[in-house]
Amino acid sequence: MKDTTLKELAETLGISVTTVSKALKGYADVSPKTREAVLKLAEELHFTPNAFAVNLRKQESKTIGVIIPEIVHHFFSKVLNGILDEAAKHGYLAIVLQSGESVELERKQVDLLINKRVDGILISLSNDSNDEAHLKEIIRRNIPLVQFDKISKLIPSTKVVINDRQAAFEATEHLILKGCRKIAHIRGPVNPQGAIDRWMGYKLALEKHGITYNPKLVYTCTHVTFEEGREFAKQILTDHPDVEGIFAITDLVAVGVISYFNENGFKVPDNVALIGFSNWFMSQVITPQLSSIDQPGEEMGALAFNCLLEEIEARKANKPYDLKTISLTTSVVERQSSQFKGK
Amino acid sequence: MKDTTLKELAETLGISVTTVSKALKGYADVSPKTREAVLKLAEELHFTPNAFAVNLRKQESKTIGVIIPEIVHHFFSKVLNGILDEAAKHGYLAIVLQSGESVELERKQVDLLINKRVDGILISLSNDSNDEAHLKEIIRRNIPLVQFDKISKLIPSTKVVINDRQAAFEATEHLILKGCRKIAHIRGPVNPQGAIDRWMGYKLALEKHGITYNPKLVYTCTHVTFEEGREFAKQILTDHPDVEGIFAITDLVAVGVISYFNENGFKVPDNVALIGFSNWFMSQVITPQLSSIDQPGEEMGALAFNCLLEEIEARKANKPYDLKTISLTTSVVERQSSQFKGK
Repeated sequence: MKDTTLKELAETLGISVTTVSKALKGYADVSPKTREAVLKLAEELHFTPNAFAVNLRKQESKTIGVIIPEIVHHFFSKVLNGILDEAAKHGYLAIVLQSGESVELERKQVDLLINKRVDGILISLSNDSNDEAHLKEIIRRNIPLVQFDKISKLIPSTKVVINDRQAAFEATEHLILKGCRKIAHIRGPVNPQGAIDRWMGYKLALEKHGITYNPKLVYTCTHVTFEEGREFAKQILTDHPDVEGIFAITDLVAVGVISYFNENGFKVPDNVALIGFSNWFMSQVITPQLSSIDQPGEEMGALAFNCLLEEIEARKANKPYDLKTISLTTSVVERQSSQFKGK
Repeated sequence: MKDTTLKELAETLGISVTTVSKALKGYADVSPKTREAVLKLAEELHFTPNAFAVNLRKQESKTIGVIIPEIVHHFFSKVLNGILDEAAKHGYLAIVLQSGESVELERKQVDLLINKRVDGILISLSNDSNDEAHLKEIIRRNIPLVQFDKISKLIPSTKVVINDRQAAFEATEHLILKGCRKIAHIRGPVNPQGAIDRWMGYKLALEKHGITYNPKLVYTCTHVTFEEGREFAKQILTDHPDVEGIFAITDLVAVGVISYFNENGFKVPDNVALIGFSNWFMSQVITPQLSSIDQPGEEMGALAFNCLLEEIEARKANKPYDLKTISLTTSVVERQSSQFKGK
């Protein structure tokens, strides 16, 4: 790639490189006539300042790094949408990486972003992140960091989350208020805080309504897929044919449950009421339409970026800033799947 | 951000900056003992070479730019998935931008990427891209460019596409072979080549089977949304109550059609057969399941990246390379929605 350099501009015009540089930056000690000549030639030759050289001087890249578990995922694509739109508004570019739920890859990606000298990092952790050394390294290097959705509570950074426990409490209570007492929970994997919190919300709702918690009604996903939803639907019918309600960790799993029940003549919501989580787009187009918990994905992404930007700018200005934990409000979206008819 | 510099390493060890630099690069003229001392200290102080300085020297960023119309879109998220996985394998980072189907934004994003000195650009054009000045500028600056999916035929670059005309021909013929003669087409907007090609494929299939093309059976989307699918479903029922088949530009629109027909007691596929395009995930979970055209999204992304990489490396080595147009094969995915029963 051959580009026009400051030197070439200077030689063509017969003036010094310093004068060219000052003219481009609009310094007052360059005559209007010279400035005009420089700008005209710069435009003719499509001169753009070398980004590497500018960055080296300023030590800022106007670029942030974003690590998410997966791109092909309704919720994360919405969060990313919020991040990218907000970054664009503020003149920032985003390097996007997906960990594929692998902590190995996540660690490597953090290294890459550190070496790339990004101005800050936004991260949502993979499900098997149980070692925080790579996050500590970001902190140790004083790189602004904001965690969102899937976070580690142990790492001192700003965090943007939803209140999973409260949301799961409301989902479960919704089923109870519809008349369900025997409620199964298809939970997420063992490690992620979000899965733990949702399971705790489920237990709290049962407790509040005087229903004894039965661990045999809890099924644990490994991969959180449509297929696992189908498998657990089958298993639940075998283990508990009298089940009245199911709260699934996410809509994708709930849609798997519906798919299996539809095929096998077990009626949702007549025989069993069902609620998912995340309010995926498909939940409003399947039959029966799926009740769910709405999570504000775009808002989470926009807020996470804005918190990061605040920290980047505060550090640049040597001003203090506070680490925050922002908990976004969710809501129950009531559709057909939870209209339990009773036995 | 305060980092360890080469100079600090040199001063601490009482050797020259050049020796430190050579030791880090493994040059043979540094004694093993010195090299070991340098590497040990570099590790202790968490030294990483300054990316800006390295880039300035090498004039390569190991970063590519990717511009897509939208992130929250099943097909594009799959393509992006393919790009990111392949880039990661080859040690490349990707700056991801979404044009939101706005050619204004797309132009600005191309400028940003040029100024950022990315090693290459992957782009899928917005629906209203009818001015190619920004793409010509990429070519003029000798920046490797690969267009994918939504492309401009006028721009000389490698292109990775599906054969939209052939795919649409097969979708329409599938309906004809199921017994439909009066077939409506809900097409995409006027400008994008893909929408034009699919419409032409629809016409060719009718022609081959001796069915007269009727422009009144063609409905044109502006935004290609679920809501437009619902609106056109209503319109088609009013205009052509005897319609036998519908070929929709994409599954999202087709799902809107199903949603409206389901609510209004018009039966798919008994009264009307339906086929979509792109094989979105939700198409296998709705009722009735939607027949569609499978487009290999991940494969398109991986191929687009690899073509770009080939061009980047060929240019670096001053070797010739050929611009290619790669057309990926699609297939009809037959599900319930196209099992027309006849009148």
